[in-house]
Amino acid sequence: MRCGIPEVVLAEGKETDDLVAIMLRHTEVAGRCLATRVSPAQAAAVEAAAGKAGLLSRHEERAKIIVLSKGGAPEKHEGVVAVLTAGTADIRVAEEARVIAEEMGCTVKTAYDVGAAGVHRLFPALQDLAGAHVYVVAAGREGTLPAVVAGLVDKPVIGVPVSTGYGYMGGGEAALASMLQSCSVLTVVNIDAGFVAGAHAAQIAALARRA
Amino acid sequence: MRCGIPEVVLAEGKETDDLVAIMLRHTEVAGRCLATRVSPAQAAAVEAAAGKAGLLSRHEERAKIIVLSKGGAPEKHEGVVAVLTAGTADIRVAEEARVIAEEMGCTVKTAYDVGAAGVHRLFPALQDLAGAHVYVVAAGREGTLPAVVAGLVDKPVIGVPVSTGYGYMGGGEAALASMLQSCSVLTVVNIDAGFVAGAHAAQIAALARRA
Amino acid sequence: MRCGIPEVVLAEGKETDDLVAIMLRHTEVAGRCLATRVSPAQAAAVEAAAGKAGLLSRHEERAKIIVLSKGGAPEKHEGVVAVLTAGTADIRVAEEARVIAEEMGCTVKTAYDVGAAGVHRLFPALQDLAGAHVYVVAAGREGTLPAVVAGLVDKPVIGVPVSTGYGYMGGGEAALASMLQSCSVLTVVNIDAGFVAGAHAAQIAALARRA
Amino acid sequence: MRCGIPEVVLAEGKETDDLVAIMLRHTEVAGRCLATRVSPAQAAAVEAAAGKAGLLSRHEERAKIIVLSKGGAPEKHEGVVAVLTAGTADIRVAEEARVIAEEMGCTVKTAYDVGAAGVHRLFPALQDLAGAHVYVVAAGREGTLPAVVAGLVDKPVIGVPVSTGYGYMGGGEAALASMLQSCSVLTVVNIDAGFVAGAHAAQIAALARRA
Amino acid sequence: MRCGIPEVVLAEGKETDDLVAIMLRHTEVAGRCLATRVSPAQAAAVEAAAGKAGLLSRHEERAKIIVLSKGGAPEKHEGVVAVLTAGTADIRVAEEARVIAEEMGCTVKTAYDVGAAGVHRLFPALQDLAGAHVYVVAAGREGTLPAVVAGLVDKPVIGVPVSTGYGYMGGGEAALASMLQSCSVLTVVNIDAGFVAGAHAAQIAALARRA
Amino acid sequence: MRCGIPEVVLAEGKETDDLVAIMLRHTEVAGRCLATRVSPAQAAAVEAAAGKAGLLSRHEERAKIIVLSKGGAPEKHEGVVAVLTAGTADIRVAEEARVIAEEMGCTVKTAYDVGAAGVHRLFPALQDLAGAHVYVVAAGREGTLPAVVAGLVDKPVIGVPVSTGYGYMGGGEAALASMLQSCSVLTVVNIDAGFVAGAHAAQIAALARRA
Amino acid sequence: MRCGIPEVVLAEGKETDDLVAIMLRHTEVAGRCLATRVSPAQAAAVEAAAGKAGLLSRHEERAKIIVLSKGGAPEKHEGVVAVLTAGTADIRVAEEARVIAEEMGCTVKTAYDVGAAGVHRLFPALQDLAGAHVYVVAAGREGTLPAVVAGLVDKPVIGVPVSTGYGYMGGGEAALASMLQSCSVLTVVNIDAGFVAGAHAAQIAALARRA
Amino acid sequence: MRCGIPEVVLAEGKETDDLVAIMLRHTEVAGRCLATRVSPAQAAAVEAAAGKAGLLSRHEERAKIIVLSKGGAPEKHEGVVAVLTAGTADIRVAEEARVIAEEMGCTVKTAYDVGAAGVHRLFPALQDLAGAHVYVVAAGREGTLPAVVAGLVDKPVIGVPVSTGYGYMGGGEAALASMLQSCSVLTVVNIDAGFVAGAHAAQIAALARRA
Ligand SMILES: Nc1ncnc2c1ncn2[C@@H]1O[C@H](COP(=O)(O)O)[C@@H](O)[C@H]1O
Ligand SMILES: Nc1ncnc2c1ncn2[C@@H]1O[C@H](COP(=O)(O)O)[C@@H](O)[C@H]1O
Ligand SMILES: Nc1ncnc2c1ncn2[C@@H]1O[C@H](COP(=O)(O)O)[C@@H](O)[C@H]1O
Ligand SMILES: Nc1ncnc2c1ncn2[C@@H]1O[C@H](COP(=O)(O)O)[C@@H](O)[C@H]1O
Ligand SMILES: [Mg+2]
Ligand SMILES: [Mg+2]
Ligand SMILES: [Mg+2]
Ligand SMILES: [Mg+2]
Ligand SMILES: [Mg+2]
Ligand SMILES: [Mg+2]
Ligand SMILES: [Mg+2]
Ligand SMILES: [Mg+2]
Repeated sequence: MRCGIPEVVLAEGKETDDLVAIMLRHTEVAGRCLATRVSPAQAAAVEAAAGKAGLLSRHEERAKIIVLSKGGAPEKHEGVVAVLTAGTADIRVAEEARVIAEEMGCTVKTAYDVGAAGVHRLFPALQDLAGAHVYVVAAGREGTLPAVVAGLVDKPVIGVPVSTGYGYMGGGEAALASMLQSCSVLTVVNIDAGFVAGAHAAQIAALARRA
Repeated sequence: MRCGIPEVVLAEGKETDDLVAIMLRHTEVAGRCLATRVSPAQAAAVEAAAGKAGLLSRHEERAKIIVLSKGGAPEKHEGVVAVLTAGTADIRVAEEARVIAEEMGCTVKTAYDVGAAGVHRLFPALQDLAGAHVYVVAAGREGTLPAVVAGLVDKPVIGVPVSTGYGYMGGGEAALASMLQSCSVLTVVNIDAGFVAGAHAAQIAALARRA
Repeated sequence: MRCGIPEVVLAEGKETDDLVAIMLRHTEVAGRCLATRVSPAQAAAVEAAAGKAGLLSRHEERAKIIVLSKGGAPEKHEGVVAVLTAGTADIRVAEEARVIAEEMGCTVKTAYDVGAAGVHRLFPALQDLAGAHVYVVAAGREGTLPAVVAGLVDKPVIGVPVSTGYGYMGGGEAALASMLQSCSVLTVVNIDAGFVAGAHAAQIAALARRA
Repeated sequence: MRCGIPEVVLAEGKETDDLVAIMLRHTEVAGRCLATRVSPAQAAAVEAAAGKAGLLSRHEERAKIIVLSKGGAPEKHEGVVAVLTAGTADIRVAEEARVIAEEMGCTVKTAYDVGAAGVHRLFPALQDLAGAHVYVVAAGREGTLPAVVAGLVDKPVIGVPVSTGYGYMGGGEAALASMLQSCSVLTVVNIDAGFVAGAHAAQIAALARRA
Repeated sequence: MRCGIPEVVLAEGKETDDLVAIMLRHTEVAGRCLATRVSPAQAAAVEAAAGKAGLLSRHEERAKIIVLSKGGAPEKHEGVVAVLTAGTADIRVAEEARVIAEEMGCTVKTAYDVGAAGVHRLFPALQDLAGAHVYVVAAGREGTLPAVVAGLVDKPVIGVPVSTGYGYMGGGEAALASMLQSCSVLTVVNIDAGFVAGAHAAQIAALARRA
Repeated sequence: MRCGIPEVVLAEGKETDDLVAIMLRHTEVAGRCLATRVSPAQAAAVEAAAGKAGLLSRHEERAKIIVLSKGGAPEKHEGVVAVLTAGTADIRVAEEARVIAEEMGCTVKTAYDVGAAGVHRLFPALQDLAGAHVYVVAAGREGTLPAVVAGLVDKPVIGVPVSTGYGYMGGGEAALASMLQSCSVLTVVNIDAGFVAGAHAAQIAALARRA
Repeated sequence: MRCGIPEVVLAEGKETDDLVAIMLRHTEVAGRCLATRVSPAQAAAVEAAAGKAGLLSRHEERAKIIVLSKGGAPEKHEGVVAVLTAGTADIRVAEEARVIAEEMGCTVKTAYDVGAAGVHRLFPALQDLAGAHVYVVAAGREGTLPAVVAGLVDKPVIGVPVSTGYGYMGGGEAALASMLQSCSVLTVVNIDAGFVAGAHAAQIAALARRA
Repeated sequence: MRCGIPEVVLAEGKETDDLVAIMLRHTEVAGRCLATRVSPAQAAAVEAAAGKAGLLSRHEERAKIIVLSKGGAPEKHEGVVAVLTAGTADIRVAEEARVIAEEMGCTVKTAYDVGAAGVHRLFPALQDLAGAHVYVVAAGREGTLPAVVAGLVDKPVIGVPVSTGYGYMGGGEAALASMLQSCSVLTVVNIDAGFVAGAHAAQIAALARRA
């Protein structure tokens, strides 16, 4: 595990056979391996191979992640990560963040689709998430939810621009720009980069553990 | 007055002599003429020439507008325009909107610098502005205030992106993009185009008068 | 009805089952719900479900909108919205504006394909539309029709850039840019955002009612 | 004279001494030489040197062009070029086109500032320009005048985007984009490239001469 | 025929039935009608309908143009247009220019694929094209052929950027930019806009006729 | 102190008198106030006013920050922030991060100019910084240092793109893009946004304290 | 062989019959011809035609190149080219470089997928490649490997940006920008332009031969 | 000397005192140090300090480079670099390439201003440069000279885009794009990056030496 982050393979664009081989090899060496952006067919093939090899597998469909391991769930620590989305279209990206953070030992609490509907859903959501050490907030179109959250909590907030929207800068660029220009204190990852946000959040939450 | 909008001259980039001559001629024909983006020196020259010609002048410094007329203030009607800004850097643009709307016969109410400080200043501001027929909201950096206002009032809202901010899309482009991508219902004008927003708002407010 | 705008769901990218469920729930609570960008298959499923649930449905094919309601057409007021297009490719976007404005109680008059053919078709069209309180004008490619209309009428004009055209800035960006830079007084919405233009226009037209 | 176009030197960014030397040498060889974008100081130095060398000079201030020649005005032919501008800020660019076309033997007729004021000034202008073989039309901001002219005349029209305007694509890019996307038939040159438009128009007008 | 340019319909994106109806109506009124960017299926339907209606049709496959007329070929005049391409991928765009220029009465001479192979193919090609009144030059990737041609002939040259190439600005933008920045005298049309270049060239060539 | 972040005023573009007044008022209410991007003249005026008002002031020249407070240094906790720069041009941005993190109670360790000189300076620098809870890494031009650091430490890393460089994307855009695309796990702030990076890092480091 | 580079045909977008005919003709004249970006079907057709015509063929699948020749492998010289990739997605581009360099007489040594895994794989790879006269380094996403290599070897390094990655500048633009901004000494080719990099490297390596 | 390239300091933006100190220190350690982009004042201060320290200095004004050394000119080898420019505005960038290549032991031959004047100046220039091992070609505006040269010589060619030109992509971007899209084989450096091109060319020319 380099820098506390598990081996991660990008499944997209890889031949299924190659993906299976790479994952088995990594799991052999490191005890644990993730693939992101797996298609259902790729996931099925990996699960079958894992079964034959006596490895455990975890397939998260919405997150499009599959995890192979020798020994099941990773060791838990006290770090808590909150993951929020503005709309439903952002959930696929948020789920990627959730699974990677869990695989790095965090407890993850989620509150999805709390942005479009207005503040009346956001306030109770934030109360449910109280106790989190760090917030990952995914939002598309104008991407303002991360700044709103950062104005309400005193913990670090990471914004994830999502490639929803249409027209001018509609592929996530408007969301990226508005997060970078925000008057609130927040950091940002690439458009749709749920994996990076989740791993970074887990590194932050791990600080709570060690101290 | 073409389409209900007074003659307007862009002073920026014009020789002072030319500006004076154009404004005197327009006022002669149309009874009233505005210049936007006037420098202090240009304004002084126009005021002096107006005095000699027996015309009335109104110089709004922060708005950088000067108005010449034969007969003083324009005829008032019942239309009310609200003008808001997120920060102090947006005021110069908002003032341009205010003056043009007043010159088109509207009552204008303002609430400046209500964005950065958070919701606690926005709510009382909106109460003060109650009764307005249309809202002009100027904001730079991530430009989210117009969408917030549009989610709280049931009248038309016009967003004005302002060229504050730095770095990526820091010349008002991030604000423009986020307003165009907004999930709220609002329309937008060019970056720093306070004049267009004010004149459009005045056309809207005039509907309240006529009915 | 938040801010006078009915519940609106973006059908694009949603599972048909989810769409049906969301719309039934919203209609239950609010009495009325719209979905935009519905595919024919989605529309058929929604209509079938509405029938079973004893709800009324209205499917506008060119607008790609479906409306569910408990009680049929919305209450009409005196506000009149005019919707124009430059070409035929802009009609799909204009229709989205028309339907939402109707659903917000306005009378809508349309004049489509009056730009390319030149001024000889525009003048009679504007005469037919006389009495409108606000103009929505959709145009692609160089996007100049909104500015032309704004130079001829004394009511507020909203430009809608449409993603027709090819080559340099051919996805609606040239139209957006030319509307923002226009010397005429007009406001703008995102590329293809007929919904936003129609809802904003309806908010404006509603002023005529109340006064 | 390569391809019928006189020797042209870009004065901007050149040392005055170098400019003088280059122009004297070119005039010696080719009988005639132009410099564009000359500062007043550069023009004065060139004129002084021309006087000493027994050469004729022509300094056009608004065009910022200086011409040296052994034998005065170029030979005239029957070709007629029309040059129009939408506003006053476009005149400096239009003048560059006018002078180069004259130096290539054309008669040039101009009609400046006929765009902003609306159609009532354009129609009489076009009547004055009747008989022209080609039209050069300079326009900034949304840059629509060339397309309007092209819809009214049956001769070739060349659009020149001008770098006026502010905000989004306000350095002439919006004008360039709208001219390239135009439904009318017109060709385009670079932003502020009055020289290219004028020389190209003169090549066109020369066809009328030869036939 | 508005401004000497025949009625032209953009077939792309139109229903076949609508296309047929529009073309029949236009031909009825104007005697002649073109459609550009027609698919093979659209062309077949238009040809069949033309046959039934007793109209003449001309289908140019590589140009993707179909022409309907009451009276066959247009009246010829003395104007000659030259059309060149740098590579083979540019031919589809060049053919569009050729057909429209022919439909406007010009003789058109072509020289295709003379750029990539180097100067040894270009010089004989230019000799074959001698006598042309105007040159249309289509080029993708870096788009330098128009400037090369403009440096060798003394007639007007129109550059057409073509959307070939890949990578940075590989959709024709690099070609557009290099043509606009060219030190040679040439004008430009939109990427892939063979129609505009051909119609503009025909307007130029028509000057040779009249004189 | 909203969300644990002290009151911060952006001095750039503010009148000196306004700046002084705002800072005195904020310090009165909150006990502490920072201004960023202060000019030397602004700083001198603030310091003078603070002296008269019996307030303590801290002026950090390279960071261009001035701090007013009633009670001197903020309360320290155990959190440790590391701040690195690739070159010397990045130091002004890094210093902004350092001062804000100190004002939020952190210990800050710095290692400047460790990128250009190659890995041989980076390794000892990272050893000096061992024990830090979070790393802020500022880099211009191609902006690769944050990714290199993130590959070597197991703590969260925040990249700050700096507006050094020239040519293509030379205003910090290349650095921003390369950080967002990085295969390493890191989050990013706006170009030159040292303040945001420092405040976010301090929020992270504060987790170490509380646990 | 123009400039020492063999005849090269871009297969993409060409009809199979045309491709076969062009390649046979070129091979007839020049003794040797390459096609890049060939589909499997195109390659099969070319190979079949080559067999009938008594020509030798070489099909490199991952490089998507097919070579026809009268006399087999090109004459070898002492020049050695090294080709490296950061990841596996870059191999298709690197292979294009490898094959063209071999066809120009070079020995090519490769080291693929040495970037993502970190420095521990790069150092042994560079030792294996010792003796190379020039390095071609392909990398996508943030594209930093070429700069790292250029900091470790004293031979010329050519960077090839690859169109992998997603989100902001994810089509190879971030890699292109970071290579152009690099503090290391390296030159760059277009995104995915393995052919250009390989041919340029072969021209460099040929210098070692001649001296 | 890292990778055969001398220590280089970017003077632009550095305090004169700092520059002097850095250069003296580097020269002490490495025997030789360059600074690029030095102002006349900076150069004078460095020369004075060098005199006092008993070091040799070489100030190249047009290149804006100053070199300090213990032992005078670098050791020469057989490598020959050719440096060409299209226009006079490109010379400042070309000179930067020339001086760095000389400092790396190459003989440099130059041919400046051979592009705009057409092929008749280029051919004799290339004959004068015969025997060069590598060509550096600087060009602004449309940037086509590097491709022309690459079509005429069989040695490696490096294109340097220069930030001359105005209007659309007029800051060197058009030149960069056209070089990257070129059908000829050439590599590219950043806009105005004469230093990188010269150092890379010197690395290539050094191959001729060693063989
Ligand atoms: N065609 C459309 N254009 C712009 N906004 C829309 C459109 N359709 C729905 N919306 C808005 O998009 C937001 C998210 O919609 P939904 O995800 O469906 O709940 C809501 O605020 C809707 O009012
Ligand atoms: N250097 C800086 N970078 C980013 N944001 C800042 C900076 N300095 C102040 N701010 C924030 O900018 C917003 C507007 O500041 P002001 O206009 O001074 O009230 C406040 O929310 C500040 O926290
Ligand atoms: N993969 C490639 N990348 C860049 N240039 C290529 C490639 N393949 C062929 N070319 C060049 O593209 C130009 C046009 O190729 P063609 O159209 O096939 O004659 C020729 O100069 C070829 O050398
Ligand atoms: N004109 C220049 N263009 C590109 N890189 C340069 C230039 N001058 C210096 N450099 C490089 O920039 C890096 C940082 O320079 P410095 O900040 O002066 O240490 C060093 O690796 C230098 O080799
Ligand atoms: Mg917060
Ligand atoms: Mg509202
Ligand atoms: Mg109007
Ligand atoms: Mg016309
Ligand atoms: Mg010519
Ligand atoms: Mg790490
Ligand atoms: Mg090196
Ligand atoms: Mg060559």
